[in-house]
Amino acid sequence: MEKKVVVALGGNAILSDDASAQAQQEALIQTSKHLVNLVKSGYKLIISHGNGPQVGNLLLQQQAANSEKNPAMPLDTCVAMTQGSIGYWLANAMEAELKAAGISKDVVTVLTQVVVDEKDDAFVNPTKPIGPFLSEEEAKAEMAATGATFKEDSGRGWRKVVASPKPIDIHESKAINTLVDNDIITISCGGGGIPVVGTELRGVEAVIDKDFASEKLAHLVDADKFIILTGVDNVYINFGKENEQKLTHVTVAELEQYKAEGHFAPGSMLPKIEAAVQFAENNPGKEAIITSLECLGKIGEDASVGTTVTL
Amino acid sequence: MEKKVVVALGGNAILSDDASAQAQQEALIQTSKHLVNLVKSGYKLIISHGNGPQVGNLLLQQQAANSEKNPAMPLDTCVAMTQGSIGYWLANAMEAELKAAGISKDVVTVLTQVVVDEKDDAFVNPTKPIGPFLSEEEAKAEMAATGATFKEDSGRGWRKVVASPKPIDIHESKAINTLVDNDIITISCGGGGIPVVGTELRGVEAVIDKDFASEKLAHLVDADKFIILTGVDNVYINFGKENEQKLTHVTVAELEQYKAEGHFAPGSMLPKIEAAVQFAENNPGKEAIITSLECLGKIGEDASVGTTVTL
Repeated sequence: MEKKVVVALGGNAILSDDASAQAQQEALIQTSKHLVNLVKSGYKLIISHGNGPQVGNLLLQQQAANSEKNPAMPLDTCVAMTQGSIGYWLANAMEAELKAAGISKDVVTVLTQVVVDEKDDAFVNPTKPIGPFLSEEEAKAEMAATGATFKEDSGRGWRKVVASPKPIDIHESKAINTLVDNDIITISCGGGGIPVVGTELRGVEAVIDKDFASEKLAHLVDADKFIILTGVDNVYINFGKENEQKLTHVTVAELEQYKAEGHFAPGSMLPKIEAAVQFAENNPGKEAIITSLECLGKIGEDASVGTTVTL
Repeated sequence: MEKKVVVALGGNAILSDDASAQAQQEALIQTSKHLVNLVKSGYKLIISHGNGPQVGNLLLQQQAANSEKNPAMPLDTCVAMTQGSIGYWLANAMEAELKAAGISKDVVTVLTQVVVDEKDDAFVNPTKPIGPFLSEEEAKAEMAATGATFKEDSGRGWRKVVASPKPIDIHESKAINTLVDNDIITISCGGGGIPVVGTELRGVEAVIDKDFASEKLAHLVDADKFIILTGVDNVYINFGKENEQKLTHVTVAELEQYKAEGHFAPGSMLPKIEAAVQFAENNPGKEAIITSLECLGKIGEDASVGTTVTL
């Protein structure tokens, strides 16, 4: 039986400088060439992806036209919209590259709602900046008018911050499993998923970390491997110092130690480390791998590729 | 075995006056109450929907922020985005109403690409108006700069017109069938689907009529019934005249005759009539029904509900 692998794509796999649809579609063609290597190696692929720059741009577009006749859509709806755009481009790029490799497989984008806890501490202490930079005066007026939280962002101005709660369920996991079992490559949990709360699945203004959402997905589809893509081939300790050390195989206990020693940058490598640890803990005997897009083709062939995390 | 029914929702089932996300979500709750009646009657539901007002608003938002850093997305990507937003709202509303009715069923939105022929005559003679109204000067400048076609629209200004080609395949039909077979309610072909051409599925600037796309979907999922929703309970001949006559059961031959006599308004009832005729012709022994949302609950119980078209 083919092994199942969940691959979480970072924003850099989709958008670097040029935000046009054409440039993002071209970037996804390059990304897909690497993803297809995993399919060639015999893996069943389950893809997730970020949406940071895309949802940021969409929020700006919504603001620019905001009026009674054409009101700006809230964040949950904007996440759904970027699942549409990126999912379309990525499914299309994947199918083109699969075809070029002589592989006949369908790729389908499933719109995904991710359930979070209304009582998650993240709602009390929002940390995730979204939308445009405002002046202090504008920010304070918005806070008074809407109750939203704005914070000063490293001297660049004031930005709205929203909660980044932990995912507790992927609402569409049954459908995703059905498609995976029928040999269809799925794209889901885009941008960490549309955040919803309660049994009524009420949309909330929040951003779910896409690596945590992807870990939950990997658990629910019973993936054999969970791969988190990033800009570097491996995780390092003492990164950029004389004694820097590349990690190839590492246990959860070792990683927890390195984390406590402050080796990983919050907001960058740290959430990936935490998501990888969570997968290894929740799925004994299975491995999480943190690596770059370029290394994907060697996974399964060369055990020293990337940083492999096990329990 | 449960019978399969494809229901094509019109724009009025989603957006009337208020374009806010909240108002559209509330309208879809009302719409879902009627759709759930079909599930209660024992049908397997396969939903499609229009996106006219939503994609129009999105195009305006894209234009309002258009810049090198935040370029406007093309029409195919905008259709994908509205499949995301409307699909999210509708899946959510459907699940809430199913739950309220004590029915446990998943509802999933599948992003859908619909294949059209690059050589379709519609590309030579574009007819479907999209986007904002411009002055004659602005329109002529745009035509010269981009090669797009603009037409004067009933004294209200100049509008871009794009092709409305006929659907020839639903690219995700295998995935949709897989989900339907596993008792999952699907939402697909939103806005007539993302229009793509060729084996490489290249996105094109076009709008596929959602009733024709839904007919193709109904054929590909082997639906027992194809229901096209509209603002009235039945199709009429001599509509609004003294001798107006409500149609309850009508054959393809009779409808073709009425159509030739000019009973149906182009751009309004006519495409629905044509889609219904096509389904009845392509699927002998099965029926297409044109009716209102409010009548859905009586379908299957009362054979005189709506206008039923058979071969």
